[in-house]
Amino acid sequence: MSSVSDSSSRLFTVDRVLLALLTVVPVALAMKWVFGLHGTPVFIASAISIIPLAGYMGRSTEDLAEHLGAGWGSFLNATFGNAAELIIAIMALRAGLMDVVKASLTGSIIGNVLLVLGLSILIGGFKYPPIQRFNRTAASLGATMLVLAAIGLVIPAIFHQIVGTDAPGLERGLSLDISIVLMVTYLLGLVFSFKTHSHLYLGTGAAMDRGGQEEAGRRGRGVYRALGLLLLSAATVGVMSELMVGELEEAAHDLGMNQVFVGVILVALVGNAAEHSTAVLMAVKNKMDIAVNIAVGSSIQIAMFVAPLLVFLSYAIGPAPMDLHFTSLEVVAVVLSTGIMALVSVDGESHWMEGVQLLAVYVMLGLAFFFLPV
Amino acid sequence: MSSVSDSSSRLFTVDRVLLALLTVVPVALAMKWVFGLHGTPVFIASAISIIPLAGYMGRSTEDLAEHLGAGWGSFLNATFGNAAELIIAIMALRAGLMDVVKASLTGSIIGNVLLVLGLSILIGGFKYPPIQRFNRTAASLGATMLVLAAIGLVIPAIFHQIVGTDAPGLERGLSLDISIVLMVTYLLGLVFSFKTHSHLYLGTGAAMDRGGQEEAGRRGRGVYRALGLLLLSAATVGVMSELMVGELEEAAHDLGMNQVFVGVILVALVGNAAEHSTAVLMAVKNKMDIAVNIAVGSSIQIAMFVAPLLVFLSYAIGPAPMDLHFTSLEVVAVVLSTGIMALVSVDGESHWMEGVQLLAVYVMLGLAFFFLPV
Amino acid sequence: MSSVSDSSSRLFTVDRVLLALLTVVPVALAMKWVFGLHGTPVFIASAISIIPLAGYMGRSTEDLAEHLGAGWGSFLNATFGNAAELIIAIMALRAGLMDVVKASLTGSIIGNVLLVLGLSILIGGFKYPPIQRFNRTAASLGATMLVLAAIGLVIPAIFHQIVGTDAPGLERGLSLDISIVLMVTYLLGLVFSFKTHSHLYLGTGAAMDRGGQEEAGRRGRGVYRALGLLLLSAATVGVMSELMVGELEEAAHDLGMNQVFVGVILVALVGNAAEHSTAVLMAVKNKMDIAVNIAVGSSIQIAMFVAPLLVFLSYAIGPAPMDLHFTSLEVVAVVLSTGIMALVSVDGESHWMEGVQLLAVYVMLGLAFFFLPV
Repeated sequence: MSSVSDSSSRLFTVDRVLLALLTVVPVALAMKWVFGLHGTPVFIASAISIIPLAGYMGRSTEDLAEHLGAGWGSFLNATFGNAAELIIAIMALRAGLMDVVKASLTGSIIGNVLLVLGLSILIGGFKYPPIQRFNRTAASLGATMLVLAAIGLVIPAIFHQIVGTDAPGLERGLSLDISIVLMVTYLLGLVFSFKTHSHLYLGTGAAMDRGGQEEAGRRGRGVYRALGLLLLSAATVGVMSELMVGELEEAAHDLGMNQVFVGVILVALVGNAAEHSTAVLMAVKNKMDIAVNIAVGSSIQIAMFVAPLLVFLSYAIGPAPMDLHFTSLEVVAVVLSTGIMALVSVDGESHWMEGVQLLAVYVMLGLAFFFLPV
Repeated sequence: MSSVSDSSSRLFTVDRVLLALLTVVPVALAMKWVFGLHGTPVFIASAISIIPLAGYMGRSTEDLAEHLGAGWGSFLNATFGNAAELIIAIMALRAGLMDVVKASLTGSIIGNVLLVLGLSILIGGFKYPPIQRFNRTAASLGATMLVLAAIGLVIPAIFHQIVGTDAPGLERGLSLDISIVLMVTYLLGLVFSFKTHSHLYLGTGAAMDRGGQEEAGRRGRGVYRALGLLLLSAATVGVMSELMVGELEEAAHDLGMNQVFVGVILVALVGNAAEHSTAVLMAVKNKMDIAVNIAVGSSIQIAMFVAPLLVFLSYAIGPAPMDLHFTSLEVVAVVLSTGIMALVSVDGESHWMEGVQLLAVYVMLGLAFFFLPV
Repeated sequence: MSSVSDSSSRLFTVDRVLLALLTVVPVALAMKWVFGLHGTPVFIASAISIIPLAGYMGRSTEDLAEHLGAGWGSFLNATFGNAAELIIAIMALRAGLMDVVKASLTGSIIGNVLLVLGLSILIGGFKYPPIQRFNRTAASLGATMLVLAAIGLVIPAIFHQIVGTDAPGLERGLSLDISIVLMVTYLLGLVFSFKTHSHLYLGTGAAMDRGGQEEAGRRGRGVYRALGLLLLSAATVGVMSELMVGELEEAAHDLGMNQVFVGVILVALVGNAAEHSTAVLMAVKNKMDIAVNIAVGSSIQIAMFVAPLLVFLSYAIGPAPMDLHFTSLEVVAVVLSTGIMALVSVDGESHWMEGVQLLAVYVMLGLAFFFLPV
């Protein structure tokens, strides 16, 4: 009982924080268009303003999913759960900042796997010693999916090392085909988890539905209200992302940081912050299945759905087609994150030290990106 | 009951397909020596003709093994199970096509681990939802052996990166010594699985023996007949391999494919096709232990017995000694295959999605080899 | 009963061997300062003389730890357990032999994980067929810690590949920060295993204490005697290490070996030989938990405590600051060792073939270091 009221008050706190952050939206717009500011202040203000907007997008997607019922609802969640990330990446793609797109994809993957999962396990582990448990089979499938996605990044990187810079056409062809394989495998994975083996996810699904229904009762939004909120917040995320991306280069230069670090750490954080808080809240409620599911599921969605989709979209909207050739540090970051996550999650048990280990890898990778020459 | 008659009729179908394919042997020979053709048509015909011959070699080896009893029989199977592969590689070695030898070894390893195991798990998973099980300890030992074999390829590749092309003598010395370590470890592994820990393999062995006896009863071949068939099919494989290898360069050029792709995908397939069908048939009968054993055991045999043996033989029959320095894409392919196979098999459970995952990695690796510049 | 008397007699034998080896200390000193010898003979004599000294350092640290009680005693063991290694490395650091320092760290890690654990599993497996068991959770945490340490070596190596040799300042900054992360994580790991989750290690700790008490009763040393012996043996290790390191270059040249091989295999062995024998003895007594704990714990201590400490110390005592950029073969050696150790230990079971597998990897890596051009 106390845990429920406890978590309600926390959720309420989260709600208030999101509302408060929403006031930064007009501030950022005014900075740029009224006061004519540019560079770091506009970049920071627009970045902060995306945090609550991404949060509202996530919530209204969940609300809509609920109204659509288990089948299409789950599908909506599984495909549009990272829509804010996608919009930010599209804006960076249109601006020709391929490096920032790839950096923010990398940052989302390692941020979910190391930072979100690490924090969830650490805080959950302190509250529920000595051991928290979660579904091994689902976690193991998630780990294998992430390894698959990592392989989808390793192959183009090795290929690039072999063919050098002389064969961009071959590289694009390979990337396009690998994107198709990743997306098809992702969709088959949805069939697996929603159709043929949905019982494996019963614990997580049921708990999620119940949580959703409680919140739905409390919030009481209708389907049109949810749709309206989704479209409105998505449009605003689009505007604010364009603002943020437009000031990124100047801000990075001013702050003495390289663009890749800004993409991997800062841009990746703002698109996922609201989601992150949900995973940690679930860990605090001892619902580790949901926390693991959010963190790992979101990484898989970025790597196997958003990244391939961006490759496809780049042919339509980009100044140039995008390939899947990430930098060697990015590839290594994804491979190492995936490896240690597989090792930590494969036994279906967690304790606070595993949280520390995941966070330590995140810090070490963050340092490497930070120290890259500008 | 129905499953037995069902599988008998399938075996019967396999028998008929092999017989039908056997007619391609004279066709290929006639193409070359009667009609004076060369290039792609001769290459394709000789490749197809090896499929049934390799199948008959495998069967007569099994028949012989049965007559020799558990001890020497198992040893025969464990050392000559990939004799067709070995003969093809020897022909390529004699022709000085080291790259094709290495490519076909790589292709056999990843083909068994990804394609055969993937198909077995996929089809078996559809027929026996939701979960199929197999012996964890045996699968785990197999995974560790494969990792060991992968390490045996990684070390010479790293060594080559360090010393460059200036020290071929050092590279050959290292490769020769590593080959000895791999072969000794392989032979000790046979002692483990046939002598000291044979009970771990009881399930697989007993099932295999039973299957073998049924078939033996049905086929009723004597030891001399088996030996004769083995020698005859081996000799014919030799002839057809020489034909195939001789036309490989021209055919690859005509088809617009690079030689490595032809070796990794096409050459590797023809030597293993019959074996592949057996693994899938076992999965369809819910005998996952045998299916996993065939796929993983065959990979281990290629990596830890056939490859070292070819290094030794290259000093006697090759135009030049062969080392274990594979290309970086080949090494990465073996490492990635081994890694995802370990992850999939370590829990002793399988479902159709794991089959999809293994096949997706196979397709992605195949694409990378395909896109390599000619 | 018979096993106790058996092991006592073995311990007695170890004691006598150590005492006998102690006579090499004056021999080595006399060679250098009385007879004016140099190069190989002095190198070998001083190396051999370190074996018993390192053994006495380890024992007196354990004795002291016992007198200090569970808390500080465990901390002492966990931080000074590899003090001999540290002293040798400091001497090499002062002599400016950074390559030898890194090689001996690498050699200690892979020596513990592959040679010591491999021998323990092999010999224990022969004596207690078919399967020996140990605590899965503790082994799994150890494997994850080692993966973390390996990541701490992979990141600077990749970083070096990216920035080249133009940015030694950035590399040193990154190494220093990663060293801090590793050391903090190591200390938190001590809190985990001695404070919050000490029950996980009860089996190993209790067994160790009991073993320690038995020996303490037999040896009956007081705290001052232990402290005196520790200081005396540490000082002598310092003298002998300086002697060994001073002759290393000439000896390596005379023996036709490269310095890295000497560091990875020879120098790493002498600092750990006494410890190694303890782990094997525990395996012979079927105390696999302690054997695994010694081997894995010692590797973790080298990678996450000694290596970072040397980076810090290098700013005070070295001719130049040391970074964590190891050679690619060293990084690969640590990664491969860690990977196969995780695979072998993750199921909490061992048999002799797993010992063979670990030793095979050790031999293959040793060969690669041996064949490196001088």
